[in-house]
Amino acid sequence: MLPDLTDLSDFRTVLAQAPGPDAEALSAAQERNGQLTKPPGALGRLEELAIWYAGWRGDARPVIGAPQLVVFAGNHGVTAQGVSAFPAEVTAQMVLNFQHGGAAINQLARAAGARMDVRALELDRPTEDFTKDPAMSEADLLEALRVGWMAVDPSADLLVVGEMGIGNTTPAAALACALYGGDAADWTGRGTGVDDAGLTNKARVVGEGVALHGKTDDGLELLRCLGGREIAAMAGAIAAARVLRIPVILDGFICTAAAACLVRVSETALDHAVAGHQSAESAHARLLGKLGKEPLLSLGLRLGEGSGGALAINILKSAVACHSGMATFAEAGVADG
Amino acid sequence: MLPDLTDLSDFRTVLAQAPGPDAEALSAAQERNGQLTKPPGALGRLEELAIWYAGWRGDARPVIGAPQLVVFAGNHGVTAQGVSAFPAEVTAQMVLNFQHGGAAINQLARAAGARMDVRALELDRPTEDFTKDPAMSEADLLEALRVGWMAVDPSADLLVVGEMGIGNTTPAAALACALYGGDAADWTGRGTGVDDAGLTNKARVVGEGVALHGKTDDGLELLRCLGGREIAAMAGAIAAARVLRIPVILDGFICTAAAACLVRVSETALDHAVAGHQSAESAHARLLGKLGKEPLLSLGLRLGEGSGGALAINILKSAVACHSGMATFAEAGVADG
Repeated sequence: MLPDLTDLSDFRTVLAQAPGPDAEALSAAQERNGQLTKPPGALGRLEELAIWYAGWRGDARPVIGAPQLVVFAGNHGVTAQGVSAFPAEVTAQMVLNFQHGGAAINQLARAAGARMDVRALELDRPTEDFTKDPAMSEADLLEALRVGWMAVDPSADLLVVGEMGIGNTTPAAALACALYGGDAADWTGRGTGVDDAGLTNKARVVGEGVALHGKTDDGLELLRCLGGREIAAMAGAIAAARVLRIPVILDGFICTAAAACLVRVSETALDHAVAGHQSAESAHARLLGKLGKEPLLSLGLRLGEGSGGALAINILKSAVACHSGMATFAEAGVADG
Repeated sequence: MLPDLTDLSDFRTVLAQAPGPDAEALSAAQERNGQLTKPPGALGRLEELAIWYAGWRGDARPVIGAPQLVVFAGNHGVTAQGVSAFPAEVTAQMVLNFQHGGAAINQLARAAGARMDVRALELDRPTEDFTKDPAMSEADLLEALRVGWMAVDPSADLLVVGEMGIGNTTPAAALACALYGGDAADWTGRGTGVDDAGLTNKARVVGEGVALHGKTDDGLELLRCLGGREIAAMAGAIAAARVLRIPVILDGFICTAAAACLVRVSETALDHAVAGHQSAESAHARLLGKLGKEPLLSLGLRLGEGSGGALAINILKSAVACHSGMATFAEAGVADG
């Protein structure tokens, strides 16, 4: 069902050839939606979400029963440039916290009824500092993409990917800036909470990285030079879900930056994805705008870990529950206006 | 715990004397929040919600285990003025649909893990047409408030109230206009979907009602003259929850109009309430603004039934789950920056 990836060109080919939503299920879901006991359009965005989900699952009356959440962790050489308020050791400490159930994402996954997996990617081997060298070799990039690719359970019916990686709003900003242009400062935010001087320094680092590696249009090459292992793994998982027709709820800035790289590989790469939330990280709204994705939630979160995506799972579940569980006007004997 | 209501002055007195949040639990929750394994403020509004909830429950580490949702239904004499796209019989038909589990709110309550109750208020005895007479007598108002008051389960730990009542965006608009002033047209929306001519007619009806009954400042008198049985019952339930220190998630325009009447009885009447969502009904955003309530969701819903409030239950549950379930920096051995 999901082919193995032996090189980067496999990845490009499989993603470009991934099937779209099921047209028959889409139109049957649309028709069903018009018959449900509510005024037309009264469930607002929940109606669109349910129809979109039905199309991707090829089922006009679907159920969400097996959401999967995967948190990827990686370390970043660029932390040597002083871009984060937290020390790099925190990445590994937080991975332990995930494994022991103590992090925010553990609680949010449980509240969403989602299975949660954690994949730490060579935490003792940070990427290179991208102000000096490409963050990863081609082999490293392929390996990180594969970790994400293989982490997706083919029997999942919804996927959220999250991340932990001290310093990783910096590569995310560099990716967004390289993909969409503009000033480094426009894409650079405070992450976990750097001060004004830290923010200026961070924008400098982003600008240097983009100047050194940002000349290419190729999403995978940008991911290799400016990304990180956990960011590439997120991209790999989102791509695998696209191939498997598993709908995805995107999380915040870093997740969205990873996803945006895929659009350069295939224009339809994110058709199976909705934006779970708009992060308080300042550039996230701009990045979602570039992708044409309207966030489901906007609650000022800026934690990462998949937290905003996890929080949105129950919204999508509720949308699908209404669509598939409601009576029609005929079934309920209700006059339809 | 909850006194019986023998007349309207009981209601006023009990509401005015209702206790506020527990200061000790509030400050203990605030302190705990600062120790959890996340950057300060990174869970955004979830942090505020959890602390607010802890205060009202008097428990620094609370759990939401018993949310209650009550849907009240009533019929409106003002439908004689042609204010709705649906016939009045639909109110009773939808009550049956609620009882049989076929409506949107049934699916949303289940997805939120909430117990759902339905209270139909004398559907065969609509209120008076408020363009001619007060909608209700004092006895009718008291009885409707009592239905709401008694519907709240004292062992619930969260309350959402919803409504069904063909035509009821018209009394809601009249209440909002009488409470806050401005043109009738500014408070009048399309409800379940009236056309342009219907909208103009509806604004005329709202304007006539406010001209006839809107001279008073008294929230309960406005509720009596311009409201409806299900609207008064919602106000009664929200007031009972205030007395019982059960936090409330407000639903859409009609629920918020009911709630707004209470603020005229006691300034702190809605301190235990958050806005679940911003409805697509055009005046809802304005009404929430008057109350200083920032909605948790904005997904274009305009169904009523408690749908937007129900959808927000999982947000609040998730907030409280993070607050009470996460490890502290010390517990997890994570460096706190």
